[in-house]
Amino acid sequence: MAKGRIFSGMQPSGNFHMGNYQVLTNWIKLQEEYNCVYSIVDWHALTSSYENTSKLPERIENMALDWFSAGLDPEKNIIFIQSHVKEHAELHLLLSMMTPLSWLERVPTYKDKLQQLGEMGKEINTYGFLGYPELMAADIMLYKADAVPVAEDQIPHLELTREIVRRFANIYKPVFPEPQAILSPLLPGIDGRKMSKSYGNEIPYAAESDELHSRVRLMVTDPKRIKKTDPGDPDICTVYTFHKIFSPEQNEIAVHCRNAGIGCVDCKKRLAEKMVSTLADVHGRRKELSLKPGKIKEILAYGAERARKLASATMDEVKSVMNLG
Amino acid sequence: MAKGRIFSGMQPSGNFHMGNYQVLTNWIKLQEEYNCVYSIVDWHALTSSYENTSKLPERIENMALDWFSAGLDPEKNIIFIQSHVKEHAELHLLLSMMTPLSWLERVPTYKDKLQQLGEMGKEINTYGFLGYPELMAADIMLYKADAVPVAEDQIPHLELTREIVRRFANIYKPVFPEPQAILSPLLPGIDGRKMSKSYGNEIPYAAESDELHSRVRLMVTDPKRIKKTDPGDPDICTVYTFHKIFSPEQNEIAVHCRNAGIGCVDCKKRLAEKMVSTLADVHGRRKELSLKPGKIKEILAYGAERARKLASATMDEVKSVMNLG
Repeated sequence: MAKGRIFSGMQPSGNFHMGNYQVLTNWIKLQEEYNCVYSIVDWHALTSSYENTSKLPERIENMALDWFSAGLDPEKNIIFIQSHVKEHAELHLLLSMMTPLSWLERVPTYKDKLQQLGEMGKEINTYGFLGYPELMAADIMLYKADAVPVAEDQIPHLELTREIVRRFANIYKPVFPEPQAILSPLLPGIDGRKMSKSYGNEIPYAAESDELHSRVRLMVTDPKRIKKTDPGDPDICTVYTFHKIFSPEQNEIAVHCRNAGIGCVDCKKRLAEKMVSTLADVHGRRKELSLKPGKIKEILAYGAERARKLASATMDEVKSVMNLG
Repeated sequence: MAKGRIFSGMQPSGNFHMGNYQVLTNWIKLQEEYNCVYSIVDWHALTSSYENTSKLPERIENMALDWFSAGLDPEKNIIFIQSHVKEHAELHLLLSMMTPLSWLERVPTYKDKLQQLGEMGKEINTYGFLGYPELMAADIMLYKADAVPVAEDQIPHLELTREIVRRFANIYKPVFPEPQAILSPLLPGIDGRKMSKSYGNEIPYAAESDELHSRVRLMVTDPKRIKKTDPGDPDICTVYTFHKIFSPEQNEIAVHCRNAGIGCVDCKKRLAEKMVSTLADVHGRRKELSLKPGKIKEILAYGAERARKLASATMDEVKSVMNLG
């Protein structure tokens, strides 16, 4: 059976942290099972940051470095910058014609985010901000993605995409599959909430040994485990959530936690050491790559070329069923 | 001094009538004074007719035939189909990011047209329909048009374009001129109201002798001129509005009207004869051209190529000031 196709993207927001890194490790796993299309979605970044774009080029370059140094393979996957493939804008425009305004107004995150960004002093009540989920639908549909790795808070957006896929099929002809969610739990911040720079609970991706040790020491654990001899519950421990990403011996650690064979201080130390050694490799590769900006540009241009081929084949079908030139 | 640039477009709605023909004759005059870019805006047609596009290819071809047979010169002007130049969608998307939603919601024609089309049973309350004036702004700005020939009801749209031009300059850098309106009065329908198929007052562009005579006979004239010996007022006479387009001896006709030297019946007959002979030429050329669909395609492809050159130069500037790739 042919492999399914996956699309996913990340905004070059400039705050790359371990939460993003976890998403990447998930993408890296998927690159074996699926044909994956991964995009640095710079147009999306404009929806909330159109007013100041001076750092955008640097952030895009940094994101590419983050991706490639983490092990995302530009041969196995199609990796590119969204704005290099105009077809995203073209499909977005065509889909806009048949998408009821109310569908966009009712996206649960819309009003929350509007308020949240408004409080940060951003003039964000724009036509493009309302159209954010429409652009996301176009991104996914352009590559006829069968599945999309998403965190739970993105599910309403994916549901909207499926509705647009069905509406398109009803009005014209079926062209797109209904993309399914591949749920990937988010790595929490050190306080157990969603990791975010605005909560101050993040672990920066660039953190080195001292910072990693001190951030891990602050992590919340099972609140019922007070003494070292109390048995712990790894399932509600932030440290253990990280072990699941960084420690191949995660099962053994869980057992030790449950029977009080390891204390939280030691457990945290083991995690920090694992993170230091994993990230040392990644940081080393990143440093090496950062000396070759021409190479990065070349890889992204190659990815854009491959993306455009798929995108333009989809647009030919779209234009044909919509009776456009 | 370098010639200014003009952009204008028409939707291939399939109801080409003498009102549209008059707009064309105006464009033909402008082709001498300006560098003109004229577009068959098929994407705009989707804003109100996305649900049924089966006739779109035929309508686009017919519009091209109408334009060329009327005398619009594909060498002097850049003439193309909007959807052939993806940069319209790209600029539309970028402008959407910085356009306040309220600017679009407050366009005076928006709610009226929404209601009007809703009453016709069209499900038109879409994201794209709200974005109609945004797409129009992108069309105009993409060619850095200095002026736009418009009818009075389009003035709010052009004012919105100017606001977007200014906002773009404030946030990024000045890239676009503020386009000025070239007001062209609309040819009325035979009852003196705006010519429109929905009012049943139109004169089809394809009308031949008998139909032209019978439609002109129904035209409203100066209501105070009851007897042939009453002096008339050509300025409030629909027939005279048409003479201004079709009769080189219009001044002489006005004088005869004012001093009752010509009766309305004769005056109408003279007009109908003028229209028949003018349109006979146009119809003849149209018939000839319609036998060469390959030639029409070729001309439009040539126009799209020239349009893309201008459009991509503008987009290079836009991307540079917005810090995009």
